[in-house]
Amino acid sequence: MREIEEFAARLREFGAERDWERFHTPKNLAMALAGEAGELVAEFQWLTPEQSERLAEDPAAFARVRAEIGDVFAYLTRLADRLGIDLLEAANAKFDEVERRYDAASYRGTARKAPPL
Amino acid sequence: MREIEEFAARLREFGAERDWERFHTPKNLAMALAGEAGELVAEFQWLTPEQSERLAEDPAAFARVRAEIGDVFAYLTRLADRLGIDLLEAANAKFDEVERRYDAASYRGTARKAPPL
Amino acid sequence: MREIEEFAARLREFGAERDWERFHTPKNLAMALAGEAGELVAEFQWLTPEQSERLAEDPAAFARVRAEIGDVFAYLTRLADRLGIDLLEAANAKFDEVERRYDAASYRGTARKAPPL
Amino acid sequence: MREIEEFAARLREFGAERDWERFHTPKNLAMALAGEAGELVAEFQWLTPEQSERLAEDPAAFARVRAEIGDVFAYLTRLADRLGIDLLEAANAKFDEVERRYDAASYRGTARKAPPL
Repeated sequence: MREIEEFAARLREFGAERDWERFHTPKNLAMALAGEAGELVAEFQWLTPEQSERLAEDPAAFARVRAEIGDVFAYLTRLADRLGIDLLEAANAKFDEVERRYDAASYRGTARKAPPL
Repeated sequence: MREIEEFAARLREFGAERDWERFHTPKNLAMALAGEAGELVAEFQWLTPEQSERLAEDPAAFARVRAEIGDVFAYLTRLADRLGIDLLEAANAKFDEVERRYDAASYRGTARKAPPL
Repeated sequence: MREIEEFAARLREFGAERDWERFHTPKNLAMALAGEAGELVAEFQWLTPEQSERLAEDPAAFARVRAEIGDVFAYLTRLADRLGIDLLEAANAKFDEVERRYDAASYRGTARKAPPL
Repeated sequence: MREIEEFAARLREFGAERDWERFHTPKNLAMALAGEAGELVAEFQWLTPEQSERLAEDPAAFARVRAEIGDVFAYLTRLADRLGIDLLEAANAKFDEVERRYDAASYRGTARKAPPL
């Protein structure tokens, strides 16, 4: 079984065992994801960009960020699973588009303010 | 190579080819992730929970949500990669904790308002 | 002095007294605002729309939401102040546009999925 | 009439004229606010903190940020109005607490990473 699928199955079982599936509508899961993304961005709000690069030097902050990243991934996996969307397929499809739009030759070294990923 | 690792490598190369790594500080990537999570939650804002369950009946909305899920996953993967965090390890570690805290026997069928995932 | 201006002055003084202005760049304040908006949306994530209408029946939840609303408003006021933007002028200008785009005669009673405010 | 109250009344009337009140549950409005906060933070994601201070030098970006700030304020006002919460009272109450917790004498000039507002 693929690794994300395995984790999705773990989340599915967790909800089923507690009878919590009725809470896990796509609407609610999108909200939970936004909430966790908010907690994640808050971890970085007062850091300079340089401090954010050296996050691992602050083990407590690093552990909090790792936990938040885990939360975001969990809700994202659960949401995709509820909608029957394959995370990697969705991301690769989106990225095929991004690569076409921003071809390397034209964009290399430009000082554009808003590169996509 | 593991499937998420492969996608992370694709993103890494994409940034390198365009000389955009300097934009991809953890601080900036956390912001980009929060921005995409905002676009995702906005897709569901006027839907009833029931409509959100039947999202696939509206192919245009479904395609938009799929693309947003792809964007969130891409920024999450890139952020984790920049910090040297393994997404699945982080999520499983977080979830081990969640399972201990909310054991199935005590929580099954409770009408708690705020279940975790 | 106008009421929002008075609150903006309070925040300005608070930062100055603690020598925290250097943290309050527009970039950082936008992040803090996104973080608080995430905490606010999380308060509603497992509620049905109907339960959210009756939030006042749960005094503890109501108090948390009120505090989060206060936080969002504080960061929004501070951000607007740092950029020299008048909140009410900005919102009314945006709303003039919205009213032109969605004229009442055409939109009344339509079952559109995504009305603006 | 107080200035925020006037704007709240404008929003209330706007929804009533289009029969859109049923969409404006607190749950949905919190989602809309999170969505707009996401768009706002996205405007700053690739800027350095210094560039964010000089946002006004880029009139197009400044106009977009002003419009997003207007959107966030509109949804915040509408949400508070639906819940019967006074924005300024909520924010001042929250801030009374913050001032007690972070007294100026102890915190001035400290290099703390995470000052509150």
